[in-house]
Amino acid sequence: MATRLIEVRRDLLNKNDVLARRLRRRFADAGVCVVSLVSSPGAGKTALLESTLRAIAADASVAALVGDLATDNDAERLRRSGVPVRQIVTGTVCHVDAQMVDTALEGWNLQELDFLFIENVGNLVCPASYDLGESLRAVLMSVTEGEDKPAKYPTIFNSADLAIITKTDIAAAVGFDRPAALQCINEVRPGLEVIELSARTSAGMTAWLQWLDRARQAAAAV
Amino acid sequence: MATRLIEVRRDLLNKNDVLARRLRRRFADAGVCVVSLVSSPGAGKTALLESTLRAIAADASVAALVGDLATDNDAERLRRSGVPVRQIVTGTVCHVDAQMVDTALEGWNLQELDFLFIENVGNLVCPASYDLGESLRAVLMSVTEGEDKPAKYPTIFNSADLAIITKTDIAAAVGFDRPAALQCINEVRPGLEVIELSARTSAGMTAWLQWLDRARQAAAAV
Repeated sequence: MATRLIEVRRDLLNKNDVLARRLRRRFADAGVCVVSLVSSPGAGKTALLESTLRAIAADASVAALVGDLATDNDAERLRRSGVPVRQIVTGTVCHVDAQMVDTALEGWNLQELDFLFIENVGNLVCPASYDLGESLRAVLMSVTEGEDKPAKYPTIFNSADLAIITKTDIAAAVGFDRPAALQCINEVRPGLEVIELSARTSAGMTAWLQWLDRARQAAAAV
Repeated sequence: MATRLIEVRRDLLNKNDVLARRLRRRFADAGVCVVSLVSSPGAGKTALLESTLRAIAADASVAALVGDLATDNDAERLRRSGVPVRQIVTGTVCHVDAQMVDTALEGWNLQELDFLFIENVGNLVCPASYDLGESLRAVLMSVTEGEDKPAKYPTIFNSADLAIITKTDIAAAVGFDRPAALQCINEVRPGLEVIELSARTSAGMTAWLQWLDRARQAAAAV
């Protein structure tokens, strides 16, 4: 029984990897920079995306996909920025997979895009195992979650290209131990780039926007 | 392929349900009140358990199981209360299941316990589907996570006997909209009991301890 499950899971992951590889090639050919955001529920993925879309939509052509088990609250929030947004409702599935991304992209012309953001379901575990063909993956952790999250959820930090510490405006109020958090990230993923920001006050947003700009240049140069 | 996966998953869930039913009978026979805690990563399960163990360990015989993908940080924290604690390290598995609980209990005399707490992996999705044989399940959401979490993760709220809003001491700092959160819980699960507390300041802890006391009396009376 256990063996059979592992086989089925491996087949599914392989199928996802094949499709993700195809998506990655398609994104590269179109020169679109695809950035996925993963985190716990409530770490601030949608708030960060809202601020990001507002900041860059004038200078870049942007679209977003947002995954959730139920509701399209996040898509509603993001649509206020005027950017094309599609909700991926996953039902009881705890992650977005490559097939869902592929389906959601139908009818969009990727050539016209500079950026595509993919907001995953709030879950620090399962999304780690599913490649979405994204160019870069950012893992968010908020100052309220506890400094040891990287040690407790190492796989998702290992699959990320950037760690973002969010809600820094309430760091003092929650007694956030910044050195401990940075040390924990570094122990799990030595050298992983870290950006600290608050989508509410905009502190640190410049570093994130510069990171995105470099990512876009890299995607366009492929 | 999809059909086969669904079949395998159903078999696994059925196997879990059978084992969970057996655990529930064992807990009832022993007269132990088993309370499981589920939430996002960082919602404060361990902090609440720490305060709870400190508050009740003098009057009741208590033990705890704590699930995590990696590390035994939480068990270490909880052991300081002097209560027997065992860590369930789930590896890459995103939830605790009945088999893990059964294995972790080995050698413990349930007859001697008034309470057994089970802290699940931080995940608002997958733990919803796994019955652990617990008497009661409490779902935690912190004031930092966003008021619409119940609508976005309805299954876990539907599987719970109590909702606990945590970190109320920073509600004002994060702009928590209390009426919206309560309304959202009530829309997803009309009539679900809600306790609001802060493990840090102890505000609201009395309501939680009274809830536990009623749960213990109910378990002992079975």
